[in-house]
Amino acid sequence: MAPRILLVVLDGIGDRPWKGATALQAARKPFLDRLVREGVSGLVDPVAPGVKVGSATGHLALLGYDPYQYYTGRGPFEAAGVGIGLRPGDIAFRCNFATLRGGLVVDRRAGRIRETRELEEAVNRGVRVSGGVELVFRAGTGHRGALMLRGAGLDPRVSPTDPKREGVPVSSSEPLDPAAASTARALNEFTEQAMAILSEHPVNRRRESEGKNPAGAILSRGAGVVPVIPPFADRYHMRGAAVAATALVAGIGRLCGLEFLSTPGLTGGVDSPLEKKMETVRRALGEYDFVMVNIKGADEASHDGKWEEKVGFIERLDGALDSLPLSPDLVVAVTGDHSSPVAWKDHSGDPVPLVLWGEGVRRDGVQRFDEVSCARGGLGRLRGLDVMPLLLDLAGRSEKYGE
Amino acid sequence: MAPRILLVVLDGIGDRPWKGATALQAARKPFLDRLVREGVSGLVDPVAPGVKVGSATGHLALLGYDPYQYYTGRGPFEAAGVGIGLRPGDIAFRCNFATLRGGLVVDRRAGRIRETRELEEAVNRGVRVSGGVELVFRAGTGHRGALMLRGAGLDPRVSPTDPKREGVPVSSSEPLDPAAASTARALNEFTEQAMAILSEHPVNRRRESEGKNPAGAILSRGAGVVPVIPPFADRYHMRGAAVAATALVAGIGRLCGLEFLSTPGLTGGVDSPLEKKMETVRRALGEYDFVMVNIKGADEASHDGKWEEKVGFIERLDGALDSLPLSPDLVVAVTGDHSSPVAWKDHSGDPVPLVLWGEGVRRDGVQRFDEVSCARGGLGRLRGLDVMPLLLDLAGRSEKYGE
Repeated sequence: MAPRILLVVLDGIGDRPWKGATALQAARKPFLDRLVREGVSGLVDPVAPGVKVGSATGHLALLGYDPYQYYTGRGPFEAAGVGIGLRPGDIAFRCNFATLRGGLVVDRRAGRIRETRELEEAVNRGVRVSGGVELVFRAGTGHRGALMLRGAGLDPRVSPTDPKREGVPVSSSEPLDPAAASTARALNEFTEQAMAILSEHPVNRRRESEGKNPAGAILSRGAGVVPVIPPFADRYHMRGAAVAATALVAGIGRLCGLEFLSTPGLTGGVDSPLEKKMETVRRALGEYDFVMVNIKGADEASHDGKWEEKVGFIERLDGALDSLPLSPDLVVAVTGDHSSPVAWKDHSGDPVPLVLWGEGVRRDGVQRFDEVSCARGGLGRLRGLDVMPLLLDLAGRSEKYGE
Repeated sequence: MAPRILLVVLDGIGDRPWKGATALQAARKPFLDRLVREGVSGLVDPVAPGVKVGSATGHLALLGYDPYQYYTGRGPFEAAGVGIGLRPGDIAFRCNFATLRGGLVVDRRAGRIRETRELEEAVNRGVRVSGGVELVFRAGTGHRGALMLRGAGLDPRVSPTDPKREGVPVSSSEPLDPAAASTARALNEFTEQAMAILSEHPVNRRRESEGKNPAGAILSRGAGVVPVIPPFADRYHMRGAAVAATALVAGIGRLCGLEFLSTPGLTGGVDSPLEKKMETVRRALGEYDFVMVNIKGADEASHDGKWEEKVGFIERLDGALDSLPLSPDLVVAVTGDHSSPVAWKDHSGDPVPLVLWGEGVRRDGVQRFDEVSCARGGLGRLRGLDVMPLLLDLAGRSEKYGE
């Protein structure tokens, strides 16, 4: 049987030097360095050189799905991630619970509320929008959620209801194209009815009595139509699974046809229990031909501007990866979905390091898994869309083109 | 006058390490290493990273013809290679003589028959298919051949008559699209009439009396329509020639508008008289602006899984290449059409090494022509379609784009 394939995506791993070294260069990471010594390395532009990508576009490319073709906005991926059953053509948004005061948004995260399940139920039960539009709202982790609208003639070209700053009212959604008028109307109806339902809700009354910010509104943004994505199994003739802490990566996996395997207790932060996540990965490798695991903490540390925390997290994830069952019937890639320089607290368009490990790789003499060492590797500089073909071919799963 | 260009294609040269080294790494090859020291090197993905290509698609790309546009199946290239005069729109197949017993295919190679010229003549004289379809069958080397069908309304979407295994009858060709019904009918008529002619033929009677497998049927596969390919001379303003042992490469050359120069005695195997082939190359360099030579043996050794044989063949071809007239009015590229790991006995999607040698190259300090050394070369990682533009430009034959 052909080797199984493991794709490890270290979220936001790439960086720029900070006081002379990137976090990857500074971290002690014997396992990743072993993979590089025994493997072949290179750099990957997730989309193209200098293109600063988000997690969704980066992951799509790494899975072999051209984001220019399949990325239709963040909403559909978040909605799939929180478990809304989507169909191509549905319109989806990512949402936040927010706190209102005097008609103004005063906290876009509603005091980082967690008890949203009852609110979700009340909204789904109570909201009825016109024009025969079906609607599902689902709460995600913390103050996050997603909304799906389904019906004839819907169009994602609408402005968000999320004003994206505080001290202003909830925005009214406007059609950005005449064809999207009924979608904007449905979104506004949802938003207004949800406000009415939430303002009365016991969960919010309790929060107010406890001095916490109530979840008085649901703000929507990231509108997108659910794309038609060729299923992973059809495309690659493999059964695939995704392991991740975030709804976004879960949603990308689901929309591409990967089974999402949840791991209780993951946080997506630098404190996430990586050993538990690696248990899920090891179990998945027993059942699936292909497993993608996203490890999020380095990106969190980068967004927080915390270089030492990023170094520490890399050292911890290296220890967790050391439990991987390296063997001749496994092929491994470790890379990132994008760079996130700590100095920027944001993504950048720098390439990310890549190592391929498996039977038959052309070892290139590179010793360390970091942005500078891997630039001298035998793979050269590749693009995100190249990663799946390389993995398939290394695993003997590629199909011949021509005779 | 601008330098002439020599493109040396080492068939299936790329490999993966086998007991720690690829055949190229292990072989003593002073000439190729000299080219690298004096030249500039890199890696080439014949089509794209990880894409496992065949010889036809690999050669088309190296000649600057995008295989996704011009590769229509193997039949047309084999048919051009055995010398059938083709026109765009003709349908062509590659064929094998096979032995039948009790109505079943018992030997798909008809005892590796060689005396096929008389059989070819008898078939072309005797077969008449309906629907106004013209037909040419031509025998190639050994048990191989090719078939061309010409007529209005023909379509290549037909299933092969070659069952591709033994112990079963010759397959009936079926249209894979309603538009191909008359093509399938013509192919079946050819196949049945050829069987009748061959069963009576004196060559086969003699083989049977000698205890050899007779050529009782002609099996067809690899259907393709002859593509419209812009002639090499129009595209590059050069007169070009191809030197090769195999009908496939001859056919690719011919369909692209290269003159095919045959060399008596070539086998395409590891025992092929390479000195004779290089004589043809040297002569061609006196007459043509561009010469492509394919050297096949390393691919044969790879398909046979013979690492030592591959090493030995590389050492021998290096000696033969040493007779090349290196001079300032010659530009040379040496590369492969695809990788063929000995361990796989098949092609892989790994890149192949490339060296460019000629006046003005930017020497990069690389010392050896192999998969790992050339990965550090000054050319980086390129694609097959990049090779012709690089050669043209190195030779001062490129046209300026814009002013």
